[in-house]
Amino acid sequence: MTTLPTTMRALSMPFYDNERNNLILVEKTVPRPTKANDVLIKIAASPINPSDVVFLEGRYGVKKQLPVTPGFEASGRVVATGNGYLARALMGRRVACGSPNDGDGTWAEYMVTRADSCMPLLPQITDEQGAMALANPMTAWGLMDLARRGGHNAIVQSGAAGAVGQMIARLGQRFQIPMIQVVRREEQVQLLQAMGEQYVLNSNAPDFEAQLRQLCRQLKVTLAFDAVAGPLSGQLLKAMPRHSHLVVYGGLSNKACVYDPSDIIFSHKKVTGFWLTQWLPRLSLAEKIKVGINVQRLLHAELKTEVQARLPLEAAAQGLRLYTQNMSAGKVLLLP
Amino acid sequence: MTTLPTTMRALSMPFYDNERNNLILVEKTVPRPTKANDVLIKIAASPINPSDVVFLEGRYGVKKQLPVTPGFEASGRVVATGNGYLARALMGRRVACGSPNDGDGTWAEYMVTRADSCMPLLPQITDEQGAMALANPMTAWGLMDLARRGGHNAIVQSGAAGAVGQMIARLGQRFQIPMIQVVRREEQVQLLQAMGEQYVLNSNAPDFEAQLRQLCRQLKVTLAFDAVAGPLSGQLLKAMPRHSHLVVYGGLSNKACVYDPSDIIFSHKKVTGFWLTQWLPRLSLAEKIKVGINVQRLLHAELKTEVQARLPLEAAAQGLRLYTQNMSAGKVLLLP
Repeated sequence: MTTLPTTMRALSMPFYDNERNNLILVEKTVPRPTKANDVLIKIAASPINPSDVVFLEGRYGVKKQLPVTPGFEASGRVVATGNGYLARALMGRRVACGSPNDGDGTWAEYMVTRADSCMPLLPQITDEQGAMALANPMTAWGLMDLARRGGHNAIVQSGAAGAVGQMIARLGQRFQIPMIQVVRREEQVQLLQAMGEQYVLNSNAPDFEAQLRQLCRQLKVTLAFDAVAGPLSGQLLKAMPRHSHLVVYGGLSNKACVYDPSDIIFSHKKVTGFWLTQWLPRLSLAEKIKVGINVQRLLHAELKTEVQARLPLEAAAQGLRLYTQNMSAGKVLLLP
Repeated sequence: MTTLPTTMRALSMPFYDNERNNLILVEKTVPRPTKANDVLIKIAASPINPSDVVFLEGRYGVKKQLPVTPGFEASGRVVATGNGYLARALMGRRVACGSPNDGDGTWAEYMVTRADSCMPLLPQITDEQGAMALANPMTAWGLMDLARRGGHNAIVQSGAAGAVGQMIARLGQRFQIPMIQVVRREEQVQLLQAMGEQYVLNSNAPDFEAQLRQLCRQLKVTLAFDAVAGPLSGQLLKAMPRHSHLVVYGGLSNKACVYDPSDIIFSHKKVTGFWLTQWLPRLSLAEKIKVGINVQRLLHAELKTEVQARLPLEAAAQGLRLYTQNMSAGKVLLLP
């Protein structure tokens, strides 16, 4: 075991802020594993995700004791562990990792997390790919798993031009499940069409609702993935035939979901949510390993992520601006 | 078999109308059973229900070919049948009955419906009780059945002062399931308290949301019955703890349901609907008989219905006005 430094550089958030001017670079003590299945990871790369943006604003499903280091996922190498079996098995290995729900995150040189929040990386996966292997690819995989287990004929999704949306679209092609892709701008229509998608609708087109309804009936769509929420959520629910299922997994519109109660009562449609943080822990270890390998094998293809910028920790504020101004251009990676 | 008349008096609706000025009294041919399991019923009494009101306005889950005779439930005697086994078994019997989804309803002297839309009445049930034995009591029973099968600790409901709401509240007492009753006026608070309810909230009180949330946590409420929809629907969803279930069964507010997507995504709450017309056909014949007997035994008690007026068919317009001006005063019964 190489000697570990005593201090490190990390980003710290002292308060939530709607404007996201709340990151400072600090020098702090390198944390140590304290519980049996803790691992200490030397972070290689960590992306800025939509979940980070809403976390900085105080609107995420997880709130932490402040000040805290943000960042929900990263890649890195395990450099120290507790005495637990699972933790020791990871010693020295390259992993993709998620941050603990109750402690500091990935935007630092080192982070302590639980061994079961780590996924060992296959040799062909780069640090950069590994850093973005969990949140988006796993969400896309988990949603598509729901579609396949539920025996759905066809799917409609909103936010199809987003990172997860594009992954879902490509998985739809791989698994030959017909899909309707809903986007909100004309250039996004062209993007999805260039990806080979046949049914792409612009939610701002004047005849959107009629087209959506017609296509949902034609393709027998019974499942919707909604990353947008707001009134679009209710349009998706209404367009689908009786007994359909709407799964909300994002709120990109920053608006409340609006549904016609008739769709819920008389047409017996249901609305549920999907959150990776709740889906993953329900899998058995064997299932997690299987999903992990399946996902990694597709990281260069259906589940690949574009990167628009690679920045050091001290440029995080600039990175946030870059990313929030144009999420479609790709992820911003922080390299500690 | 007594000789049947050839013509009868019936109410007829030639068009849907938001103002509900769309009922005319007509003389028409008495229908005959045409299919094996058809029964002809001489109607004794039929109530005006909220479902009739929205049907007249064209906002119900069922639309029929016009002109049509409205009315969804009634009591009466089976006076002619097709050759089916179930139909012949009902010949001469007093029944509670629902109207067919694709034909004339109960606001007439006679109606043809399917034998499996009839429930034989126990001798102690009056025609008046029998006329109101299906829609409301069965909805209350079906919802409470969902609560008991789901193993829920406690329930919150909106529209608690309504006919179904009061039935649900009394069933809650019978089955000893703690409930929070949500109403919208102070005199309704007093009504529910006089019924022995401990937790009654007025949704127009300034601290309603805080009180609702506190009570939901205290009683460990994990199920909500929503008869109102609109923003209240989202308040119920938000107030309940993680993994709770909201069941929408009415839209009395005439407004869209509004939900914070965070409640659906991060708190893993789900929204489904309940509609008697879809619940009943899923029961086996044995289950239907059991539910029918259970419900009838409570028609004088937990599932009783108040009547504010008894009117002939020709006074239907007046009856509609009476009922819509003050639903809490009890049902209006039409006696053909």
